[in-house]
Amino acid sequence: MPISFLRFPIILIILSFSISLYSQEAEETADAFFIKAIYDQVLTSSSCYDWLDHLSTNIGGRLSGSEAAAKAVDYTKQMLDTLGLSRVHLQDCMVPHWERGKPEVVYMTNKRTGIRTNLNVLALGNSIATTSAGISGEVVEVRSLDDLEKLGEAGLKGKVVFFNRPMDPTQIRTFNAYGGAVDQRVYGPTKASKYGAVGALVRSMTTKIDDIPHTGVTVYEEGSVKIPAVAISTMNAEMLSSSLKEGAVEVYIKTDCKTYEDKPSHNVIGEIIGSEFPEEIILVGGHLDSWDVGGGAHDDGAGCVHAMEVLNILTKLNYRPKRTLRCVLFMNEENGLGGGKAYAEKSNKNKEYHLAAIESDAGGFTPRGFSADGHADIFTKRYKNVTKWLPLLEPFGLSFSKGGSGADISPLKGQKGMLFGFRPDSQRYFDYHHTGVDTIDAVNQRELELGAAAITSLVYLIDKYGL
Amino acid sequence: MPISFLRFPIILIILSFSISLYSQEAEETADAFFIKAIYDQVLTSSSCYDWLDHLSTNIGGRLSGSEAAAKAVDYTKQMLDTLGLSRVHLQDCMVPHWERGKPEVVYMTNKRTGIRTNLNVLALGNSIATTSAGISGEVVEVRSLDDLEKLGEAGLKGKVVFFNRPMDPTQIRTFNAYGGAVDQRVYGPTKASKYGAVGALVRSMTTKIDDIPHTGVTVYEEGSVKIPAVAISTMNAEMLSSSLKEGAVEVYIKTDCKTYEDKPSHNVIGEIIGSEFPEEIILVGGHLDSWDVGGGAHDDGAGCVHAMEVLNILTKLNYRPKRTLRCVLFMNEENGLGGGKAYAEKSNKNKEYHLAAIESDAGGFTPRGFSADGHADIFTKRYKNVTKWLPLLEPFGLSFSKGGSGADISPLKGQKGMLFGFRPDSQRYFDYHHTGVDTIDAVNQRELELGAAAITSLVYLIDKYGL
Repeated sequence: MPISFLRFPIILIILSFSISLYSQEAEETADAFFIKAIYDQVLTSSSCYDWLDHLSTNIGGRLSGSEAAAKAVDYTKQMLDTLGLSRVHLQDCMVPHWERGKPEVVYMTNKRTGIRTNLNVLALGNSIATTSAGISGEVVEVRSLDDLEKLGEAGLKGKVVFFNRPMDPTQIRTFNAYGGAVDQRVYGPTKASKYGAVGALVRSMTTKIDDIPHTGVTVYEEGSVKIPAVAISTMNAEMLSSSLKEGAVEVYIKTDCKTYEDKPSHNVIGEIIGSEFPEEIILVGGHLDSWDVGGGAHDDGAGCVHAMEVLNILTKLNYRPKRTLRCVLFMNEENGLGGGKAYAEKSNKNKEYHLAAIESDAGGFTPRGFSADGHADIFTKRYKNVTKWLPLLEPFGLSFSKGGSGADISPLKGQKGMLFGFRPDSQRYFDYHHTGVDTIDAVNQRELELGAAAITSLVYLIDKYGL
Repeated sequence: MPISFLRFPIILIILSFSISLYSQEAEETADAFFIKAIYDQVLTSSSCYDWLDHLSTNIGGRLSGSEAAAKAVDYTKQMLDTLGLSRVHLQDCMVPHWERGKPEVVYMTNKRTGIRTNLNVLALGNSIATTSAGISGEVVEVRSLDDLEKLGEAGLKGKVVFFNRPMDPTQIRTFNAYGGAVDQRVYGPTKASKYGAVGALVRSMTTKIDDIPHTGVTVYEEGSVKIPAVAISTMNAEMLSSSLKEGAVEVYIKTDCKTYEDKPSHNVIGEIIGSEFPEEIILVGGHLDSWDVGGGAHDDGAGCVHAMEVLNILTKLNYRPKRTLRCVLFMNEENGLGGGKAYAEKSNKNKEYHLAAIESDAGGFTPRGFSADGHADIFTKRYKNVTKWLPLLEPFGLSFSKGGSGADISPLKGQKGMLFGFRPDSQRYFDYHHTGVDTIDAVNQRELELGAAAITSLVYLIDKYGL
């Protein structure tokens, strides 16, 4: 065989390899430019901070079933209507309707000295009201649900249980510390009631020592006796714990909460139909409801305006997505997941396929990356694909890690797409979470905007390359 | 040769390789444990937030030459004295002594309508006083120093020059945006005076639009005519710029500043003498002086308490350093670098060798890593060595990048050690920098503490392994 025949295919291979290298490089440059354009757009003419200001200041706390929640539905739909999307609509769901009622009255009385001290509290979501006379009981401090079992009815009957295990300050990611302590709030009161406790105080979920109570959901097991349950500030928790070391303390609790009939409500949905693969959905979402106190700015107004801004930026940049981009503002993440469940149910019924779903529900702080999750059948390969984008995302301080995504999107796992959780810096999140101080003042505009840009960049890459 | 002879050395090689692998792994595990212990220590029993509270609240703004600066020297020396170090002392240096005097009075008058509006300003550091009657001039807006040349004496004589190029909001690292705009503040007034301008207004160095003026140093070229120079808030800058689009605007400026004779002052130094290589110094530092307004909390009280905390943590953990660890709180970074220069001069004279110097002067925000710099002779190899530690540091969100270190330590570059700049998240830094709102309220305790832990971890690794 003449040598020239041998050379020809080799040259072809080298040539095609070079072209493919060249074209890969060119694509990467184009991607880098587009991602820079996304960031420039957000940092110079974003709407998300103004949207969040309206949501958290003018509308304010918007617990499921409240008038404010209904206003938030109307407002965000109105805003999405201005963005020139393919379609904006409301999706029905049912939500619980709990109201705090009149401000709680809780005080402790040192039984030795008779000195009475008011405690700074918030009833936990779902908590029942006490009688109008309130309830009283001697305080028993515990550090875990296991402690209840050890104490038993002998130690707990007629008592007020005080759950006082602090969030672990040595966890670098504060959500891990939250995860390690929140069982006390969610399951503590109902478990205490089994042993005859008449009320529950729960140390607020924060590593900070201050006088701000943090509310959040508590769950009553079906058939169990419901007892009133309130969160007390960490400062009050420290004080109460000190007092208990010196002798018996009695606590008086008066709550005025009420659970009404479930109510119809809505998820708010806006979408841009994909030009090539319209049946492949990329969802970006947050949850529209918040607790009733404060403005729900970080939790989760930030996530909602992030999701809205993704579609806004891409539209402003005249980006025509191949796949369907859908912004979903879920109702009722805080106390029932009515919106998330209704969405997944309807999506499954319609045989939809979510190639990816990204939830922002960790605040409007400086982005650090995304956690990724997905059905075992598809996860390993797709996670590897995603990490190939790191050279494009690392300049913006973004990375990927394996881990849970978001409560509202997790019911979509069965569709075998990828699920992502937006992960901003977590250090300040639990200074504000579920409190009266989760307001627009706690949100830095640049940090919020960078979050929107980060999520938009990931959406762009998924849309362009698939997974 | 019998085959057994061949095998013997192979087995030896494999064995020694395994041992070395095993021992390397064991060391890495030990390092991971120790770094975790550092973080645990800081996050559960740190002193740095309390120190910073005292520095920024009780002592407050502490410009070189002021009584507060002297108090800051005394206080930090006192605190270092409590830590059980090998030696704590004050090092002499000379510093400038400039005082703001009575609050500035600046207003603009729309020449068409006659409407007068007060402007929110701060005189720039070094600025001269106007006469007691103040000065007035028509305003000429420019965007760069080059604009001055174009306008020349014809356009600038008798005028007040208004430098209004904003910091670029699209820079992800805000320090880059600062670097791209601050020439207007430092060199603008002196350059404008060459063309006969009678005063200068400089847009505050921040990407935020608010009503807070940011001071900072301006430099008069030797022999040039000194003109009064003030920073105006970005909100006022926008307003003034809008007014100028409609017609002529005159500005009145009255400043009361005074520069006194240079004064003796001090760097504050604490050290632990190394047990094996005492002649190899690892320096951690920040600068003790701040501007006169606000509390100098992020700039650079945070850096000072970081540096102090490094020695404190390692002592509390009973760590016995091989090398000499030295905490240096430099005086006069803001307007002269008197402390940094005196330190380097004395160090060179004493033939000291700084194996590494780390400066924290970018605020007390969540750590993101370190920039590294060094003499060309040593940099490449040592940077590579440093990046080998990434697996130990990445779990804490830390990375390395090439770039400048810190103003106070940069004169040490000639000693051919490595220089590092601590790099926390930069998004909020220029909300507070050189303003009245750089107070303890702007500092999140966890974020501050994590910075101390990050720097301590790097110091530990350098001390243990060298560079």
